[in-house]
Amino acid sequence: MKLTSIRDFQENTTVQGFFLCLEKRLKTTKAGDYYLGLLLQDATGRIQGKIWDQVDHFRSQFESGDPIAAKGVVEKYGGVLQLNCTHVAKATRERYGQYGFREELLIPTIQEDRRQLWKTLMGLITSMKDKHLKGLLRHIFRTYKETIMLLPASVSHHHPERGGFLQHLVSTGQIAAMLAGHYPRIDGDLLVTGVLLHDIGMVRGISTGLEGGYTDEGHLIGHVVLGRDILREAVQTVDEFPPELTIRLEHLIIGHQGTPAEGSPRPPMFPEVLLAHLIDRIDGRLDLMFREIDNDPGEDPFTGSRNLFRTPLWKNYRR
Amino acid sequence: MKLTSIRDFQENTTVQGFFLCLEKRLKTTKAGDYYLGLLLQDATGRIQGKIWDQVDHFRSQFESGDPIAAKGVVEKYGGVLQLNCTHVAKATRERYGQYGFREELLIPTIQEDRRQLWKTLMGLITSMKDKHLKGLLRHIFRTYKETIMLLPASVSHHHPERGGFLQHLVSTGQIAAMLAGHYPRIDGDLLVTGVLLHDIGMVRGISTGLEGGYTDEGHLIGHVVLGRDILREAVQTVDEFPPELTIRLEHLIIGHQGTPAEGSPRPPMFPEVLLAHLIDRIDGRLDLMFREIDNDPGEDPFTGSRNLFRTPLWKNYRR
Amino acid sequence: MKLTSIRDFQENTTVQGFFLCLEKRLKTTKAGDYYLGLLLQDATGRIQGKIWDQVDHFRSQFESGDPIAAKGVVEKYGGVLQLNCTHVAKATRERYGQYGFREELLIPTIQEDRRQLWKTLMGLITSMKDKHLKGLLRHIFRTYKETIMLLPASVSHHHPERGGFLQHLVSTGQIAAMLAGHYPRIDGDLLVTGVLLHDIGMVRGISTGLEGGYTDEGHLIGHVVLGRDILREAVQTVDEFPPELTIRLEHLIIGHQGTPAEGSPRPPMFPEVLLAHLIDRIDGRLDLMFREIDNDPGEDPFTGSRNLFRTPLWKNYRR
Amino acid sequence: MKLTSIRDFQENTTVQGFFLCLEKRLKTTKAGDYYLGLLLQDATGRIQGKIWDQVDHFRSQFESGDPIAAKGVVEKYGGVLQLNCTHVAKATRERYGQYGFREELLIPTIQEDRRQLWKTLMGLITSMKDKHLKGLLRHIFRTYKETIMLLPASVSHHHPERGGFLQHLVSTGQIAAMLAGHYPRIDGDLLVTGVLLHDIGMVRGISTGLEGGYTDEGHLIGHVVLGRDILREAVQTVDEFPPELTIRLEHLIIGHQGTPAEGSPRPPMFPEVLLAHLIDRIDGRLDLMFREIDNDPGEDPFTGSRNLFRTPLWKNYRR
Amino acid sequence: MKLTSIRDFQENTTVQGFFLCLEKRLKTTKAGDYYLGLLLQDATGRIQGKIWDQVDHFRSQFESGDPIAAKGVVEKYGGVLQLNCTHVAKATRERYGQYGFREELLIPTIQEDRRQLWKTLMGLITSMKDKHLKGLLRHIFRTYKETIMLLPASVSHHHPERGGFLQHLVSTGQIAAMLAGHYPRIDGDLLVTGVLLHDIGMVRGISTGLEGGYTDEGHLIGHVVLGRDILREAVQTVDEFPPELTIRLEHLIIGHQGTPAEGSPRPPMFPEVLLAHLIDRIDGRLDLMFREIDNDPGEDPFTGSRNLFRTPLWKNYRR
Amino acid sequence: MKLTSIRDFQENTTVQGFFLCLEKRLKTTKAGDYYLGLLLQDATGRIQGKIWDQVDHFRSQFESGDPIAAKGVVEKYGGVLQLNCTHVAKATRERYGQYGFREELLIPTIQEDRRQLWKTLMGLITSMKDKHLKGLLRHIFRTYKETIMLLPASVSHHHPERGGFLQHLVSTGQIAAMLAGHYPRIDGDLLVTGVLLHDIGMVRGISTGLEGGYTDEGHLIGHVVLGRDILREAVQTVDEFPPELTIRLEHLIIGHQGTPAEGSPRPPMFPEVLLAHLIDRIDGRLDLMFREIDNDPGEDPFTGSRNLFRTPLWKNYRR
Repeated sequence: MKLTSIRDFQENTTVQGFFLCLEKRLKTTKAGDYYLGLLLQDATGRIQGKIWDQVDHFRSQFESGDPIAAKGVVEKYGGVLQLNCTHVAKATRERYGQYGFREELLIPTIQEDRRQLWKTLMGLITSMKDKHLKGLLRHIFRTYKETIMLLPASVSHHHPERGGFLQHLVSTGQIAAMLAGHYPRIDGDLLVTGVLLHDIGMVRGISTGLEGGYTDEGHLIGHVVLGRDILREAVQTVDEFPPELTIRLEHLIIGHQGTPAEGSPRPPMFPEVLLAHLIDRIDGRLDLMFREIDNDPGEDPFTGSRNLFRTPLWKNYRR
Repeated sequence: MKLTSIRDFQENTTVQGFFLCLEKRLKTTKAGDYYLGLLLQDATGRIQGKIWDQVDHFRSQFESGDPIAAKGVVEKYGGVLQLNCTHVAKATRERYGQYGFREELLIPTIQEDRRQLWKTLMGLITSMKDKHLKGLLRHIFRTYKETIMLLPASVSHHHPERGGFLQHLVSTGQIAAMLAGHYPRIDGDLLVTGVLLHDIGMVRGISTGLEGGYTDEGHLIGHVVLGRDILREAVQTVDEFPPELTIRLEHLIIGHQGTPAEGSPRPPMFPEVLLAHLIDRIDGRLDLMFREIDNDPGEDPFTGSRNLFRTPLWKNYRR
Repeated sequence: MKLTSIRDFQENTTVQGFFLCLEKRLKTTKAGDYYLGLLLQDATGRIQGKIWDQVDHFRSQFESGDPIAAKGVVEKYGGVLQLNCTHVAKATRERYGQYGFREELLIPTIQEDRRQLWKTLMGLITSMKDKHLKGLLRHIFRTYKETIMLLPASVSHHHPERGGFLQHLVSTGQIAAMLAGHYPRIDGDLLVTGVLLHDIGMVRGISTGLEGGYTDEGHLIGHVVLGRDILREAVQTVDEFPPELTIRLEHLIIGHQGTPAEGSPRPPMFPEVLLAHLIDRIDGRLDLMFREIDNDPGEDPFTGSRNLFRTPLWKNYRR
Repeated sequence: MKLTSIRDFQENTTVQGFFLCLEKRLKTTKAGDYYLGLLLQDATGRIQGKIWDQVDHFRSQFESGDPIAAKGVVEKYGGVLQLNCTHVAKATRERYGQYGFREELLIPTIQEDRRQLWKTLMGLITSMKDKHLKGLLRHIFRTYKETIMLLPASVSHHHPERGGFLQHLVSTGQIAAMLAGHYPRIDGDLLVTGVLLHDIGMVRGISTGLEGGYTDEGHLIGHVVLGRDILREAVQTVDEFPPELTIRLEHLIIGHQGTPAEGSPRPPMFPEVLLAHLIDRIDGRLDLMFREIDNDPGEDPFTGSRNLFRTPLWKNYRR
Repeated sequence: MKLTSIRDFQENTTVQGFFLCLEKRLKTTKAGDYYLGLLLQDATGRIQGKIWDQVDHFRSQFESGDPIAAKGVVEKYGGVLQLNCTHVAKATRERYGQYGFREELLIPTIQEDRRQLWKTLMGLITSMKDKHLKGLLRHIFRTYKETIMLLPASVSHHHPERGGFLQHLVSTGQIAAMLAGHYPRIDGDLLVTGVLLHDIGMVRGISTGLEGGYTDEGHLIGHVVLGRDILREAVQTVDEFPPELTIRLEHLIIGHQGTPAEGSPRPPMFPEVLLAHLIDRIDGRLDLMFREIDNDPGEDPFTGSRNLFRTPLWKNYRR
Repeated sequence: MKLTSIRDFQENTTVQGFFLCLEKRLKTTKAGDYYLGLLLQDATGRIQGKIWDQVDHFRSQFESGDPIAAKGVVEKYGGVLQLNCTHVAKATRERYGQYGFREELLIPTIQEDRRQLWKTLMGLITSMKDKHLKGLLRHIFRTYKETIMLLPASVSHHHPERGGFLQHLVSTGQIAAMLAGHYPRIDGDLLVTGVLLHDIGMVRGISTGLEGGYTDEGHLIGHVVLGRDILREAVQTVDEFPPELTIRLEHLIIGHQGTPAEGSPRPPMFPEVLLAHLIDRIDGRLDLMFREIDNDPGEDPFTGSRNLFRTPLWKNYRR
């Protein structure tokens, strides 16, 4: 059973694959017949789907939110590809595992190799000098490795794909290491640790399940405070962790979002926190601006102004 | 040794007492002689002090920030009482304890009887129904009783005197109990618990020492997050504390300040939190407005507008 | 003629009743036939309606905005009940009065008994001490009783049903009486009067007609200023009303909305006004939060964040 | 008795005149002697005053806030003129009326001839077409003429001198007449009336006494709402005043300050109100900018940025 | 070939004309047949269009964004006129020029005679005294005359029709001349020049093509800065242009939008700039308010509040 | 003549040096004698000065704002060093040049070697690939080298010392080069050029004279727009400078300050501008935070909250 990803769909070909059904709606054709309108997603993109025949039968086979196995023909309609399904079934690991079904096929995932990113992350930690901070970071990342490999950096903001958390971690960690070298007054190991732990609470605040979203704790307590919990738990596992380091790290997590209105219970009160905050902002904002520019569907050389930046962005900026 | 409090000073009498010296400055008289200008405080108020004679001697006896024993004559100057000191010495418990010196004589303190307030607080807890919440509250208040008896409700905002924390606690607790009766959909025990614990982090966030002010933790972590720590520690001491209660109480602390810009890491997300927030605001704002009106020195029927309310307040409002 | 209210509709039953037709749109069925899509409302709720047959005939019988008498079958479509009408006619008092038609059947109305609320309100006034304030309140409420029984507390904000104004009045009046007992420095009769009169201008600012909405005066002058007019007119009917009370009551109305940006021409300038403002806020905000939580249609444990509180609210908050 | 105004003081001359004593402070000379430091004001300016001799005697002759008669020598000190008083007495009409004392000598007053301004104002009204509006305006201005001749346009904002209200009235009235001619869709008489009445509430909101400031009503109700009272009272004196005009004029007063945050209970809801608001702003802001530039004491070509405009202003702007 | 403009369309008549096709969508009729839904615009308005027959043929004849020649019957549907087209073709100057096709027939254009407005503008310049400023203005307007005749004052804000720029220019220029006469301290020629040049950068910042919108420069540099470029280029063409005038004019352009948040790189720093800013605001805001009121489709006496003024506007305001 | 800098002053030593007299005030001693109170500055710091003898003589020798040559004794008063001057004279290059007087001795100057910084800057340019951008940068920096060596990065904000501009340039240029390597989608040469030119307008906007401050152009046009002028002038000197590069560089200067409210005429519209903005912010904010912490005089472990960050900063943050 050859599986085709949405990114590789081509007009007028027959394909099969596994998808997450994000929407399922009963609609009426021009001729008065019912059909099902679907919105399908896999790790590589999204596409509209249609079921024209045996509507009653297929309608009861799956619900919105279910993983499905689907077969059909890719056709172009109104200039956009869609999948006209001839067969659809709910996909479970029991039944379709043998055909290669894995949940992660369904979820948008970064293109970079996550194992390679993990190695880079570990390398960053190894290159630090302070043994207590190294011990702390190793303990935390070892504990949450499985979750981190799956986590997006945010629910619907920057780096929202699987692995986005790790990608953002590595990118900001590398910038922190560079800036630590650039500013001699900055305590480099403290900065790098702060940057690597700034959003660690996301491992409790965002669900890694199929549909993603915030956990109850994520909503009610917030990932900033949850991250401090993780830090405080981990500190107790490191031999002779210097007490004066703990409060500095706590504040690095508490203050990394900027002002209270931006999400920090307390604003940055020493230079390493300020720097961690700005490094986080650089990497997040840049990712968002690239996304806005890459995904704008219009033909105008500028995007609209309904985006996080509240201004049109220039799509023809590359010289 | 009869001690006179600042509130009881009368013109042209000789008094003695213990004071906290908030300022000590070397100044020059009209005749070119040095003198010491002091700002003195005790539990009942503040007054300017002067040392005209033996300036060199007394100058080295104490520093700004020291408790002092002082003797002198109360005189009126420019329409305001001041204390012309004839004798001043640094006050220590060793030397002056026998004469009645206690630090709490020096610090502005609420006029209500704190022991009576404590009883009222305990009564509020006793009248609750939920045994787990009662157990939790008893544990926490027993643990921090000593600090709570000394704590102001804020450093320089509402209820800033010793015992102000307790006063605010009892007042908001009573309002919570009343409103719980008024709104049948409100979970009364949850509301009262939330209100009684909303600022509990102050016991770690504000110093109860002579000079008051925020602790390092108070600055860097904030009393909101510190209060949740206390809650989480205490929950583990209560037998079979229902886990679903914990997160509700955590959010009651996390959200009680209102929006993030007002100081809550997460805004109120269910009705009891919203109500706890508004009860806190009522008691705090009302206290502040009474203070502004009571303390305005001008003769105009309205105060100036440089206050928290950003508007002139009407001093002649009582009919 | 047995009438069924929307709240009591059950699947697959035939019902008849009186409704306000909020929308009437000509649409096309899957088979190319016309049908009428309706949005119907009565005192207990809203429902979609459809007219499949005799479209041309029924189409001309009533307009959007008309009260109608309708008969039909309740069916479930897409999981939601709708009324498939077999007969519809414009409802007038002349023709349908004999069958029980009254306008108030059409308008969402509070569930509490308004006569009971009115008694409670009168009791609140009776329990006051100041005879002038009692006389004033009795005069005003006697004058506007008919309107007050019909009025919502706001057009589309808190307590927006018929009787909502009265409900909000009683609730805030009771809280005011309680807090007057709690805070000894507060002038209780002044506070209660202020709270009972704070929104009295609504009787001129909101229409009690079928479609509700603001009056011209409500838009152009605003209920705050209109309420002060009512106060000033009424004061002249009370024997020897003390002049110094009048300006206090005027400011209680003028200032009860908080800051100018929140809708007060002048912000609260003495404690009773501040307290009246916060009591109003408690009752309004709590009502709004319950509504948001009760009415959120989604299955997620949290509502969306497009609400007055600008944050997701927790629907599973009850323990 | 020749009187000299502060604006005409010259170094090393002996002068006498009447002044308002804004401040009176007992100070100490370099030689240890007491002296009195005064801040004096008359209609033309302000100056520092000193009393070096007979301090005890003169000290008891008058208080801060009193009008005084003073005689002395004008001297330059630190580059600035001051008045070294040899004789000072409290000035009352009884005793000094015969020497030319009138309170208005003491209060900063516009330089333009107020009677001439009044004539211009009356001319503006006469040139209107609508007889009801003319009648209304004549009634109101006749009623409050005495106050208007004395009133500043604001307590400490634009046109703060005696007559400033009248000056602002005439200027904005003239602009309104011009713009009414410019914009054919604008109802000219309505606009002019709105502009002439926009701040009429000031006659009840600002005190015309020696020390100026807001009245209790001005603080608690605000001049906007008070102005609408005056309008409503006056409307009843005009024969057959068209009712549909009243609400338009009410809204012109209610809305002329712009948004609620800028001081309007309701924002401008039709074009004439918007225009009245912007005309008010032009005249007020321009007056304030000229004042800032004229009064800046520094030598830099730009003022500081602590002004209403929150920006440095260019003092050398005239070419 | 008689051409009918959209403003002159009457029910049940056959018309032909030239239109800009703003939207073209393939839709499905109730009977399951395809049809084309169009949005058509000419200089006098907008209207929905439909093509019911020969859909396949006409579909390929033109694209959204094309000028078209269309013939059809005007019919009323749902109370609104629409054009049922029987023939449609892409309009080019080559083929349809002979029938009267000109692009400007397609673009909303002010109703006032632009040549007359131009004369008024020239008259304004002629009546100035300063020969250098006159020379400057003549040079600039001569250079950009062709563009100015086509330019709207903004893309989608005030005066957005062809000629709107010129209309706004003349209106604000006339107000400036009036206010220059009114305020003797104002440098009239400087003010008028500033007002006439304040938005001159629009000639480079807005496209005058069929579809309008900002140019790249308009987006990336902004019309304020572009306007200063034009000024600086022009200054060099005027003999002996006084250097001290240049920076005043530069700041008049730089500062005319108000605060930086309102779009000025630097805020107004001398009175003429402040006045120019407020004149611009008067003319722009008034135009916008008339548009909101004129174009509101609802039957309520007030518009909705989703407009620039964030408040309902009164549509029945004319007495 | 041995010169001592303020940073090297020691108690009870006799020193001589050149200083800028920032303030000169005539005061009175305790004994009633006049003395002169001075505020002196040199490149290394500030100190209070006093002249006790020959006051009349020295008083006329120099004015506030003059460079002076002074000799005196360093003494401690109230715990702070001051200079009791025995001799003071106005310093001119003619008279004191032979003794080593140079203006730059008087002005706070960065400690880093400016020639070394310049070399680093040139190295940054050399390492770029794009020959047009290299040519452009070389032309601009060659042209303004003399000014850049003297310029602070801001008047009273970050890097306010002589050479601060260069220091900020090198630091942000280095960060830009690093981040260009980090983000492969970023056009590195464009980013580095943008960063190096972002504040180039300062060379026309800030005065390099003794007293510093903004130039008229700096106030009225702003350094952002002035910087674009410099860019546009320079582009014309580079052979075949690609036109598409110019507008990108213009926007890099126009948009580098962030939102309009933060000072950019247009906000960042493509990624390199966003990045340039955030690099500028990192270097500026970090410098400001270090300054706040280093210069806070209090003994409390936290600074006050009246700083750019609006929060107390932790002075004991170094572990």
